[in-house]
Amino acid sequence: MKRKVGPAMFVYPMPTVLAGALVDGRPNFATLGNNGLMRVKPPTTYVSIHEGHHTTKGIREHGTFSVNYPSVNQMVVADRCGLASGRDVDKSEWFDVFYGGLETAPMISECPVSLECRVIETVSLGHMSVFIGEIVEVYVDEDVAGEEGRPTSYVDMERLDPLIYCPGNAYHRLGERIGTGFHEGKTEAAGAA
Amino acid sequence: MKRKVGPAMFVYPMPTVLAGALVDGRPNFATLGNNGLMRVKPPTTYVSIHEGHHTTKGIREHGTFSVNYPSVNQMVVADRCGLASGRDVDKSEWFDVFYGGLETAPMISECPVSLECRVIETVSLGHMSVFIGEIVEVYVDEDVAGEEGRPTSYVDMERLDPLIYCPGNAYHRLGERIGTGFHEGKTEAAGAA
Repeated sequence: MKRKVGPAMFVYPMPTVLAGALVDGRPNFATLGNNGLMRVKPPTTYVSIHEGHHTTKGIREHGTFSVNYPSVNQMVVADRCGLASGRDVDKSEWFDVFYGGLETAPMISECPVSLECRVIETVSLGHMSVFIGEIVEVYVDEDVAGEEGRPTSYVDMERLDPLIYCPGNAYHRLGERIGTGFHEGKTEAAGAA
Repeated sequence: MKRKVGPAMFVYPMPTVLAGALVDGRPNFATLGNNGLMRVKPPTTYVSIHEGHHTTKGIREHGTFSVNYPSVNQMVVADRCGLASGRDVDKSEWFDVFYGGLETAPMISECPVSLECRVIETVSLGHMSVFIGEIVEVYVDEDVAGEEGRPTSYVDMERLDPLIYCPGNAYHRLGERIGTGFHEGKTEAAGAA
């Protein structure tokens, strides 16, 4: 039996990300679940942020942003980052910040993976701005990067230990690997389905 | 130490979804990881699909689509759905299909959660189309829906047992709940961070 629960943000799972931007010369970070993949080649992602947020100002100013994926052991500081505004506190003091070639997309050393992005499209959804960004560079901790030159062919997801956000206002960790994409459907079981 | 691995689709975790559309009068479904939240009120999500995909044609025709979240025990049929085109096979036979008020967004009974969406914006990213949709209704299996009228205040994520996709072409299941949003950062540990 299905229950109609009305319009709801029942999208899951969501990544927990720290979106970074340079605002008035200072790095700032916003905690978001509004992130996902849009295109593989060239790799393209998005962050969706409240129009009034401090980070939004920096993205608009420079046309760049970063997406930083905290691991589970950064849950407290990631959550804390979502409770305060960069207008009131200097969040850059909470992290070791580094920059890449774009120079205006501050990234977080403590996060095992950071994406450096250039805005290619902005969509206004009322009070929210969706910044669609081409991923121009990916920075990965050496010990989780996998084979040289093949970043996504082998990834140690257990070491990445990503912080996941789900409906019910819940943080979760990632569970076990159970299968391979574009493969499971080829099995005999699929033929018999 | 950070390693630069070049531009890559290093976005994680991704949901595995079956995007549904009515194409030439027949329900069709495409398996995607390109889905996420964009806005909470009104709830808004997106799917990003290859311009040439069969499902894309149906979304363009009717301006509606569905997002169906399979559970782990639907991994084989979900993966299979991504290996075939609706031009060649009738995927509607693989599922028990139902419709909501929009009438043109076919949904999958076997999936514990389905979103019924109306396109409010379309963004063209070369060969990919990003369909941004307002979620007009959510259909949830009765046994995972939580309290009446409060669909996301209590959600049994363990029963939903979502199928997650990660870099490395890997399906994962969701792990344990480890914290609460907008709360963990308020603890004493945060103050000491």
